[in-house]
Order: sequence, then structure tokens, then C-alpha cells
Amino acid sequence: MGYNVMSRTCPSRVVLHRIGARWTVFVLNALEHQPLRFVQIKTHIQGITPKVLTETLRTLERDGLIARTDFEENPPRVEYELTVLGRSLLEPLRAVRLWAEEHVPEIQAANAVAAMEPDRR
Amino acid sequence: MGYNVMSRTCPSRVVLHRIGARWTVFVLNALEHQPLRFVQIKTHIQGITPKVLTETLRTLERDGLIARTDFEENPPRVEYELTVLGRSLLEPLRAVRLWAEEHVPEIQAANAVAAMEPDRR
Repeated sequence: MGYNVMSRTCPSRVVLHRIGARWTVFVLNALEHQPLRFVQIKTHIQGITPKVLTETLRTLERDGLIARTDFEENPPRVEYELTVLGRSLLEPLRAVRLWAEEHVPEIQAANAVAAMEPDRR
Repeated sequence: MGYNVMSRTCPSRVVLHRIGARWTVFVLNALEHQPLRFVQIKTHIQGITPKVLTETLRTLERDGLIARTDFEENPPRVEYELTVLGRSLLEPLRAVRLWAEEHVPEIQAANAVAAMEPDRR
């Protein structure tokens, strides 16, 4: 059976929107090389608020992309790591990330041109 | 000079967020094989509102990913097509789209398990 993101009711569309969610790629990226604690992830991803990071982690955990381990120590130690499923998403996301990093000058140039044009509409 | 999306002030982060914007991938995908008019794009992307499609098209045009051609006919004919830059983003996005379509069952299974678990926090 085929899934197709272009179909309004296809569940793959929800998955794609979830991947595109603002901070998903940053969190997965931060966890690429090792499990991390909350504050470590936050340090990795400059500019994310604790509230948003908390929400992003819960969503990724619920979707099975990361796993949360509470070591039940005192003081508390909780770590997050990629699951096999989450790791499988790294490669496709890396391609998009590299594209973004490579094409900044072209996008900036296009924006500069657009800013100089009179609005036609 | 290197761009790095993990850096708070790096312009590549803006680009990446733009790519991740809710409908970007759908619009680029709709235009993969031919230029289309507004209503044709809307038909391709089930469920997008005219307002959101208009905004998405303007952003993509401003970023240089699509080009808008007004044939200045009566009745008006306006078409949108991918630029070379926009086309170069298709391949990275295709990988993410395919991942989404392939992994729906695993994500759904993870969600089902999460729904049965008591909230630990």
C-alpha cells in the first residue's frame, strides 16, 4: 500500500509536517554523536527556549525518533538519544541542511533583488 | 567561509527554517514537472487555503526558488515555475519525503505505544 504526502488525508503528510517542525532537525542533529542531557542539547542548539525544547523532545519521543532514559539517580539524570528510526532520518535531513548552508548567498541575493523591485500586485 | 545552521546568528538557519516551512515542500513538488497556474497548484496540494498558498508562493519567489510569469493576457494568465535554484532543492527534499512515506507505520506504532503509557512527568 502506498503513502503519498500530496493526499490530504494521508498520514505521511503528518509525518512530513512533523519533520519540518521548526526545531526537529536541530535536535536530531545535536544527538547525532552521543546521548545528551537536556541542558547539553540546549547548549548545542543556540537560541531555543527551554519550553520549546521540552515540547520538541516530547514530540520526538512520542514519534519514536528519540528515547528518553531516566537513570533514577539523585540528583536526577535524564538522557536523550536517537533511536534506530531517528538515526535513519539523519541522512535525508543532512542533505537538506547542507543545501541550506551551501545556498545562503543565492537566497540572500534573490531577497536583495526582490526588496528593490516595486510590488507588482 | 562556512555557514553552520547550529549557530544562532547564521543566515543558513533562516534558510533552513524557510525550507521547513509547512508548505514549501508541497509547492516545489507540485512544480517539479511543469509550470502551473495558481489554481492548478492548489488542486495539486490538497487542503491548502488560497491565502496560505499566496503567501507561500511569494516567499518562494522572493527567495529565488520559483519564478512568476505574468503573460499579460486578458483574462489574466500567470504561471509559476521552478528556478534552477529551486530545482536543486528537489533532490534533498525528495529524500525527506520518501522517508516520511516509508516510515508511517513505525511512527504510528510509536504514537500508539506512547498513548498507552502513563505520563511520567
